[in-house]
Amino acid sequence: MRDDHLIDTKQLAHEDIEAVLDRAAEIDADPSAFVDRHAGKLLGLLFYEPSTRTKMSFETAIKRLGGDIVDMGSVESSSVKKGESLADTTRVIEGYADALVLRHPSQGAAKMVSDFVDVPLLNAGDGAGHHPTQTLLDLYTIRENAGLDDITIGIMGDLKYGRTVHSLAHALTNFDVRQHFISPGSLQLPRSVRYDLHEAGASVREHTDIEDVLPNLDVLYVTRIQRERFPDENEYREIAGEYRIDMETLENATDELTIMHPLPRVDEIAPEVDSTEHATYFEQAHNGVPVRMAILDSLLEEQ
Amino acid sequence: MRDDHLIDTKQLAHEDIEAVLDRAAEIDADPSAFVDRHAGKLLGLLFYEPSTRTKMSFETAIKRLGGDIVDMGSVESSSVKKGESLADTTRVIEGYADALVLRHPSQGAAKMVSDFVDVPLLNAGDGAGHHPTQTLLDLYTIRENAGLDDITIGIMGDLKYGRTVHSLAHALTNFDVRQHFISPGSLQLPRSVRYDLHEAGASVREHTDIEDVLPNLDVLYVTRIQRERFPDENEYREIAGEYRIDMETLENATDELTIMHPLPRVDEIAPEVDSTEHATYFEQAHNGVPVRMAILDSLLEEQ
Amino acid sequence: MRDDHLIDTKQLAHEDIEAVLDRAAEIDADPSAFVDRHAGKLLGLLFYEPSTRTKMSFETAIKRLGGDIVDMGSVESSSVKKGESLADTTRVIEGYADALVLRHPSQGAAKMVSDFVDVPLLNAGDGAGHHPTQTLLDLYTIRENAGLDDITIGIMGDLKYGRTVHSLAHALTNFDVRQHFISPGSLQLPRSVRYDLHEAGASVREHTDIEDVLPNLDVLYVTRIQRERFPDENEYREIAGEYRIDMETLENATDELTIMHPLPRVDEIAPEVDSTEHATYFEQAHNGVPVRMAILDSLLEEQ
Repeated sequence: MRDDHLIDTKQLAHEDIEAVLDRAAEIDADPSAFVDRHAGKLLGLLFYEPSTRTKMSFETAIKRLGGDIVDMGSVESSSVKKGESLADTTRVIEGYADALVLRHPSQGAAKMVSDFVDVPLLNAGDGAGHHPTQTLLDLYTIRENAGLDDITIGIMGDLKYGRTVHSLAHALTNFDVRQHFISPGSLQLPRSVRYDLHEAGASVREHTDIEDVLPNLDVLYVTRIQRERFPDENEYREIAGEYRIDMETLENATDELTIMHPLPRVDEIAPEVDSTEHATYFEQAHNGVPVRMAILDSLLEEQ
Repeated sequence: MRDDHLIDTKQLAHEDIEAVLDRAAEIDADPSAFVDRHAGKLLGLLFYEPSTRTKMSFETAIKRLGGDIVDMGSVESSSVKKGESLADTTRVIEGYADALVLRHPSQGAAKMVSDFVDVPLLNAGDGAGHHPTQTLLDLYTIRENAGLDDITIGIMGDLKYGRTVHSLAHALTNFDVRQHFISPGSLQLPRSVRYDLHEAGASVREHTDIEDVLPNLDVLYVTRIQRERFPDENEYREIAGEYRIDMETLENATDELTIMHPLPRVDEIAPEVDSTEHATYFEQAHNGVPVRMAILDSLLEEQ
Repeated sequence: MRDDHLIDTKQLAHEDIEAVLDRAAEIDADPSAFVDRHAGKLLGLLFYEPSTRTKMSFETAIKRLGGDIVDMGSVESSSVKKGESLADTTRVIEGYADALVLRHPSQGAAKMVSDFVDVPLLNAGDGAGHHPTQTLLDLYTIRENAGLDDITIGIMGDLKYGRTVHSLAHALTNFDVRQHFISPGSLQLPRSVRYDLHEAGASVREHTDIEDVLPNLDVLYVTRIQRERFPDENEYREIAGEYRIDMETLENATDELTIMHPLPRVDEIAPEVDSTEHATYFEQAHNGVPVRMAILDSLLEEQ
């Protein structure tokens, strides 16, 4: 097995993460220096699940580096429908491309595939598993806006099922970051994640009320609370209302508070917040491009 | 708000239109001079409705200029499904691209989006609203085949619901063109459009019988009469039959008559007409490329 | 009609086939010499049926030559839904592209279209009809692994409906190849194909048991037996089991046996075979790229 697959941020040491973020900053500062750097290189896209921002930002990233994509298209239009295994499909497509990006609904899919492919594989989300490029762009956004040294972050919303949150929380243990988790009781961090963070030496506190902690935060990372998690519509609406950020909530925030969200948002952040200095979620989405460019640039130059 | 969004041809002065058509003619004469002119530029495609020719000709246009696309893909495979608003999706995707193309089923969608995006936005059809690049390629095709000075045009078919027709008719008021409208009584021009044309000083006449006017026409623009507009299948068939062009109808036409159609056609023009000198609808579709190249070239060089 | 459409391998003389395979070998040996060879050229993709490997390898091939695609997308997202004829759609799209690739479920579709388009058309499968680029990549794989001179090939599985098999068998009559066909009685070669091979002077023998012929084979070409062909699930399972290749079956094979499969496979070849020297099916799929590059290179240089 190659050692340059990117399956999980846990595989990355502190200096690996810093190297990606540094290169992303270099790209952000002067994108024109990276044009045509990987001309002729092809990135194979295997998206077994819908995706807008992850897929498009990978597409943008490789094209901004002078390369191009070969796209499997939707599962409905592919021979997956004919009963082909993920292993076979991947082994065919690796013959077309210089690197592969895989999103798959099953946890562990990327790890399984990585054992037998001969080109670098990037995990773009494997169900409840990992999504390392999302974590790296989150870290990049935090570093650019608040720094990654001696800061306080609040992570709010669905902390039980949110894979984004688990990966980010773990990655933050590489840095001097105090973590506060804010959620309804029924959507708290799973014990395994809490244990994991504890083992990694993280400073972790949990809350049910955002008011308790908001004034102390440098960064607030909001996630979506999904309707499907609640048997009762009224209970959902009541809880979603409590974990929603609007101008009133923000009265107690510092001027420097950076608000992030992995998007898509539905109702967790009021549109009125978009025009404030706090709103960093669109910038965060746009950071997917330089961060993925940095990852691809590093992978492809080793080939 | 930027002033270079293209939402509606009504925003274009006579000289703006001529400038686009002139540049398209230049491109048509020597496409090789435009290769690589916008190398590295990315055009974001947001198509919320199916489209073949509009989408493919935008794709061809940017690629013929040396650029590339980033495509949101179908609504089914995007996070639109997760309830994201058009505003949010657009604000994310503008971070990936140097310009955006939007098709959306809701009238006014492009206008709404244009208020907050920071890259140029091209309206590629907003429901019953506008489709300005279609109008420009129609004008280009008329100019190349019959000129836009002192001509008589007939516009036939569904004049009530046809957005293409309304935009074209209005744009033609910039030129010395006599307009005849031919349709069944139930599918006549809406009063608002008739009033609009009158205000713009257009020479307009309406007919129910193509025979009355055909011999005088330099250009005949045919549109599709949609089955869905008629509660009764027999009524539809009878009317569709009367507004169908075949060799017999054409006996009274001049040799120079140019026949156009925005396509797709179903049964409005008999296939036997395709091989005559009149048939200009495939050329018209192909003109989508130089016209959209001209528009993109002008937009992107200002960046 | 142009004489450079590729509709059916039967149109190719022995030396035409050798020329394609020679160029593919040249590309395989030094792909970098072909980069940018067709910069700016656009290949139009019209896939009316799902496809992964054919579509992606055409996409890869044109991109590896420096060109790009314009893709109609799925039938669901195109104006085919509005009732446009195949003829009209093709005549529009040929205005965007320098060559077209068509896959369509109806036998004869590519031939029909080829009569009126003005750019070269490549048939990428027309229902039960032809799929000439598949045949050429099959021949290339055989030549690279076993040679195409004085060899024995076994073709096994569904010989009745398999278009891949019929085209390959006919193409092999250009070479000194002994052909053995292995299938259940109900899925034997159709009489017309058998007659055709006989007329072409082929050496052909038919078997129901793979054991009878395996030890003599240089190449074994396995195809899928489709569940849908059998009214009874139990009968299907019994027969599929008899025509399945695993390590036990291979005990009687020579060390040099080359095993091929057009993919996707479902259960016809056990995964344990993948890691043996026999397994050539992924290489075969990857050969789609140099072979399609060779075909496109030859077509586009004539323009």
